[in-house]
Formats: sequence, C-alpha cells, structure tokens
Amino acid sequence: MVQLVLVRHGESTANFDNTYTGWSDVELTDHGREQAHTAGRLIAASHIDFDAVHTSMLRRAIMTAYIIQDELHANWLPITKSWRLNERHYGALRGLNKDKTRTLFGPQQVAQWRRSYTAEPPHLARAHHQRRYAAWPTSIIPTGESLADASARLLPYWNDHVVPALRADHNQLIVAHGSTLRALIKHLEGIADADIDGVEVGNAAPIVYTLDERLAIADKTILTTE
Amino acid sequence: MVQLVLVRHGESTANFDNTYTGWSDVELTDHGREQAHTAGRLIAASHIDFDAVHTSMLRRAIMTAYIIQDELHANWLPITKSWRLNERHYGALRGLNKDKTRTLFGPQQVAQWRRSYTAEPPHLARAHHQRRYAAWPTSIIPTGESLADASARLLPYWNDHVVPALRADHNQLIVAHGSTLRALIKHLEGIADADIDGVEVGNAAPIVYTLDERLAIADKTILTTE
Repeated sequence: MVQLVLVRHGESTANFDNTYTGWSDVELTDHGREQAHTAGRLIAASHIDFDAVHTSMLRRAIMTAYIIQDELHANWLPITKSWRLNERHYGALRGLNKDKTRTLFGPQQVAQWRRSYTAEPPHLARAHHQRRYAAWPTSIIPTGESLADASARLLPYWNDHVVPALRADHNQLIVAHGSTLRALIKHLEGIADADIDGVEVGNAAPIVYTLDERLAIADKTILTTE
Repeated sequence: MVQLVLVRHGESTANFDNTYTGWSDVELTDHGREQAHTAGRLIAASHIDFDAVHTSMLRRAIMTAYIIQDELHANWLPITKSWRLNERHYGALRGLNKDKTRTLFGPQQVAQWRRSYTAEPPHLARAHHQRRYAAWPTSIIPTGESLADASARLLPYWNDHVVPALRADHNQLIVAHGSTLRALIKHLEGIADADIDGVEVGNAAPIVYTLDERLAIADKTILTTE
C-alpha cells in the first residue's frame, strides 16, 4: 500500500474575486495562506512520509506546496514544478468575472464551458511568450482548454513522474489546481465524462488515497479540521 | 558569457549564537530572512535570467533560496536540493559554542580545524539515521569533514549539474553555506590550499561571476546595498 495526497492550492485573489484564472499567476490571499498551513498540519498529523512533491509552475500552487512542506518539517523534500500540472487554461475567459461571462456569452454557454468535459473556451490568439514556458515548443503550450485537453497534457506527467514512484512504494504529494485535480481524480477513479461535473475539489482540503500495488483505490479520505 | 551567482544563506540562529552548525538544521533569524530579501532584490536589480536554482538539504539555505526566488518573481524556477551542497560537517563540534571549543580543545587545535584545508574535526560515532539522507549509502554520508572532504563531495554535484548548464549558456543560482561556497570559490578561482583561510563569504552577500565558454572568470562582483 502506498499513499497519494492531492491538495488544491489555498484561496487565491481570483477565487476571492470570482474570476476565471487559469494560467494567470495570481497570489494566495492571507486566508489562502492560512488554509495552506492548516492543510499542512492535517497532513502532518496523518504521519505520511513523502518522498517527493509535485506542483505546477503557478505561484498559488507553489506557495501552498512550500507552506505544506514547512508544516511537515520537510523543506528538504524534492519538489518538481511542471506546466503539465498548471490549471486548465481558460483562454479568452481569463481575468473575466464569472457572473460577467454569463451576461456576455449567455448562461447556457457558460454552463457548458464549466460543466462539459469537452467544451473549449474561446482561445487566446496565441500563447503568451513568457520566459517561464520558453523551454517548450510553442505548439504544445495551450491557448485555451477543455477539461479533456487539460487531462491529455496532465497525464504524461502523471504516468512518467508519479506512477513509477507510487509503484516503487514512495508516497507522493501533488499540490495543484481545481480543474487539473478533477481531471486526475477522474482518471484515478474511472469517472465517466458525463459525471465529472459532480466532482468538486475544495481549496486546501487534502485528499488522501491509499493505493494497492496496481494503484487501485483501497481507501480515500478527505482531511478536515472537524 | 554566462552568469553564476553564489549566495550564502542569511543569518541563522547558530550564526547568532556563534556555534558550530554543519548539518544541524537550524532556522534563519528574522534578520536572516530580511538579509535574504535584500539579496533577492539586489539580484533582481542585476536583471539576470536564471534557468535553475541549486541549494542544500538544510532549511536555512532552502528558505533563503525560496525568498530570493520570490523577490525575482520566479518561484516557478526549478530548484534542486542536494546533500552535496550541505555545509561542511563539523562532526562532534556541532552544537558547541566556538569560544567554548577553544577552552575544550585549545586555541591552536581550533584554529587548525577552522583554517587548515585538510584538518578534520572529531567525527561523530556514525551518521545520523535521518530519513532525509536515507536514500544514499550510509558510507558516503559524512560524520565529520575537513574543508577538503567537503570539497570532494561537493564537486560531483558541481561537475554534473552546474557545469553542463553553464556551458549551455544557462545562468545558474547556487544558495548554500559558508564552507561549501569557500570550497567552490577555491575550485573556481584556483586558490591554493594554503590560501583558502583568507576567503570569507558573508551571509546573503550575492557573488556574481561572469564566465566565458571555458568557465574562466571574466568578472566577479559582490552585490551590496552600498
């Protein structure tokens, strides 16, 4: 048996403002930082010895991961930051208030973008030329993604960097984002495309999976302070 | 031309108490954290785009590196934490006050431990069985080191993980410790064993090397607020 813990970042300024964020590099709020400390203490109390931490290249997830490592007294743990763990790219919606998009595009269209597994938001004209992503071919850096698209670029990271470690009995911690964690949970639990709408991942609420040698789920526990 | 920046961690509680630290995992003081922020702002003002950050497995260096990354707005940079960048292991001296060791062992012996390149402190009976170092053979984890010993275990990391990146024109940031940075500076600058005593590395004072394609030093600048 091996353990995998998934944590969505703490509350960000965009969560607070109710805007689409995606790849925008927003900060944690003070409350979000406090949530990350609480998540770290909850994980510490579960006495799981991790071998590695995985996070995205976005600040809200990285800072959440650092705070959790600190609460675990394990700042020394290796941490990998991959664009493949970044949030779903919301294309031209990013920076827009969620209520505003309903006025602009109609509630049905917005509901489809949010709930459907395959609906893509309007894309950006082209990928932002940020130095942070300059090492990769521009063609693979997204300009707008459905949840299915986000899953497709997430899974190579999962299969190459997390699965082999879990199979070697090394507990792994992944600190990422609402949509990429939904995609990962869908993959892990074999949830159908039509049912993914029902899966919610709360800010900084650690999900502890206990997995057998074939990575089938033996137990799933969400850690809370209650 | 490529740039290499070396930074010793900010003031630690052990620096403040004037004790031998080595592999003890002490904290930064508030002043040390402030020094790290200042170092980060100085490096940011030099407009060097780094491709990677290297640090030790000790908290005072890791936290200094994180603070510098934050000041660079580059939390997303890959960071590697290696025991080979840890401070020189002070063996049985660790935790002892530096003045106290003079009383215990005599000022000449202490001066030799501190100044000679090859003098070894009394070793610990055996390596601490810390989970953090459990992945490596016990035989290579030090129990006490001369500066020459620390250099010998540092250089494989330098040669395998830093040199190839510098030769590929990727600027590198190393955040480490007083003695390991002295060993690295000795290697880089070709300082003789007998002259290493004169090399001091201040807390959180960034040293910027500009290196040519053969990694010969074209310029060396120490960044300060003055």
